[in-house]
Amino acid sequence: MTHTVESLAHVPASEVRAIIRGGEWDSPTSGVSLGYAQANMIVLPRDWAYDFLLYATRNPKPCPILDVTEAGDPEAKLIAPGSDVRTDLPRYRIWENGNLVEEPTDIKSAWRDDLVAFMIGCSFSFESALLEAGIGIRHIEENVNVPMYLTKIPCLPAGRFSGNVVMSMRPIPHNQVVKATTCTARFPSVHGAPLHIGDPSVIGVKDINRPEFGDPVTIHPGETTVFWACGVTPQAAVMKSKPPFAITHAPGHMFIADKRDSDYAVF
Amino acid sequence: MTHTVESLAHVPASEVRAIIRGGEWDSPTSGVSLGYAQANMIVLPRDWAYDFLLYATRNPKPCPILDVTEAGDPEAKLIAPGSDVRTDLPRYRIWENGNLVEEPTDIKSAWRDDLVAFMIGCSFSFESALLEAGIGIRHIEENVNVPMYLTKIPCLPAGRFSGNVVMSMRPIPHNQVVKATTCTARFPSVHGAPLHIGDPSVIGVKDINRPEFGDPVTIHPGETTVFWACGVTPQAAVMKSKPPFAITHAPGHMFIADKRDSDYAVF
Repeated sequence: MTHTVESLAHVPASEVRAIIRGGEWDSPTSGVSLGYAQANMIVLPRDWAYDFLLYATRNPKPCPILDVTEAGDPEAKLIAPGSDVRTDLPRYRIWENGNLVEEPTDIKSAWRDDLVAFMIGCSFSFESALLEAGIGIRHIEENVNVPMYLTKIPCLPAGRFSGNVVMSMRPIPHNQVVKATTCTARFPSVHGAPLHIGDPSVIGVKDINRPEFGDPVTIHPGETTVFWACGVTPQAAVMKSKPPFAITHAPGHMFIADKRDSDYAVF
Repeated sequence: MTHTVESLAHVPASEVRAIIRGGEWDSPTSGVSLGYAQANMIVLPRDWAYDFLLYATRNPKPCPILDVTEAGDPEAKLIAPGSDVRTDLPRYRIWENGNLVEEPTDIKSAWRDDLVAFMIGCSFSFESALLEAGIGIRHIEENVNVPMYLTKIPCLPAGRFSGNVVMSMRPIPHNQVVKATTCTARFPSVHGAPLHIGDPSVIGVKDINRPEFGDPVTIHPGETTVFWACGVTPQAAVMKSKPPFAITHAPGHMFIADKRDSDYAVF
């Protein structure tokens, strides 16, 4: 069976996880299971877990923690009982000493008893709210991965981790920028309000058409570039801080939780 | 010089910390340095730090983390540069194997190189917002410590930590309950909106006149009991989980940060 973002848009999270687990979907998840929260992932040895949890605590905007697994246990119990983080994401990245060594579609053979998975809020979670507000999402319209940029904005360091903030970008018509800001501000656990609105050079983006992660999208006249904190930020920290071993999701290829976006709305 | 809550109400945080450090104030801090954020504290050996940080991450309502010190370093750099958590709180509690053994006014002699201090948001921080909204605060009016109750509501366990939520209570006139809810909801990092409004028995409070921590306050006819998550919750976890060594603030005797309440407002 061939799936598309459209055919999966209204399929419940648990069913989409089963489809991914069965090897039937290895593409980005933006637009899939609308209304369900999505999550970034970083898996680290227990020995590095405190440093990372502290890094996330000090940088809650890019790294809002939704769930932390017990060492060796691949189930994200809090946000998706019955899930298996080794198989339920469409694509992974395996890192050794800060270098990307593999991009597999499951991590069963790489799993170890000392690994802890951190599940981190994802801005895909508030895209339903943007769509409901009548705000188009360009990377869904163009059927590509969201563009993500490694900015010059530093995170607060913690233990052995440091790095800059990664931000996702959505072009928004000027007359919808305020609405896009207020309607995403309701969801701080999935990155919330934008970090930057307007001139990309202010945050150190050199070429808007060459994102460090994901794909470029069309920016029409009369649109502003709006940047949200992104859960790929831990991957920038992995590249800079070089833990001996780490596994992450591949950018845009998220874990889809049973939690609803509305579970994370604060007002 | 004799200080009172009134005389300290509008003194900047750094000056009040100096007064406390000098041994001139060992009373509760509600109503002191209005507009500055206050913080609960729990100090644990580095070996217990991951378990506690995970406990706080899983229970952000009672345990919102404002700052975490480096092991052995007593400065809360993020929220109060130049501070010393060994001397800048009016009163401490020292715990051994879950038992309260001492209530000193400084912890210089108990400090160790492996200790990590977690600074946790405190509902005293939003009392300025309540006062500005015209909502009286009974424990300030009666010049006593805020009443705090050990409820029957469990926290999510993490590692070796478990325990129930502790809540502070403020009696609020019925016609101000909604306002008290919305104006504290703006401050999730300092416990935010109430956890419970109304009948205390619902959350397991047996006798409203006998709080487990702090002092009872008068409840007038026409008032509702409103309960907020409380940063004494880690002390309930210490009592239940019995780490070999811990230091906390004495309930109501808080660390006063340089951060302003407004730094933690989300809308």
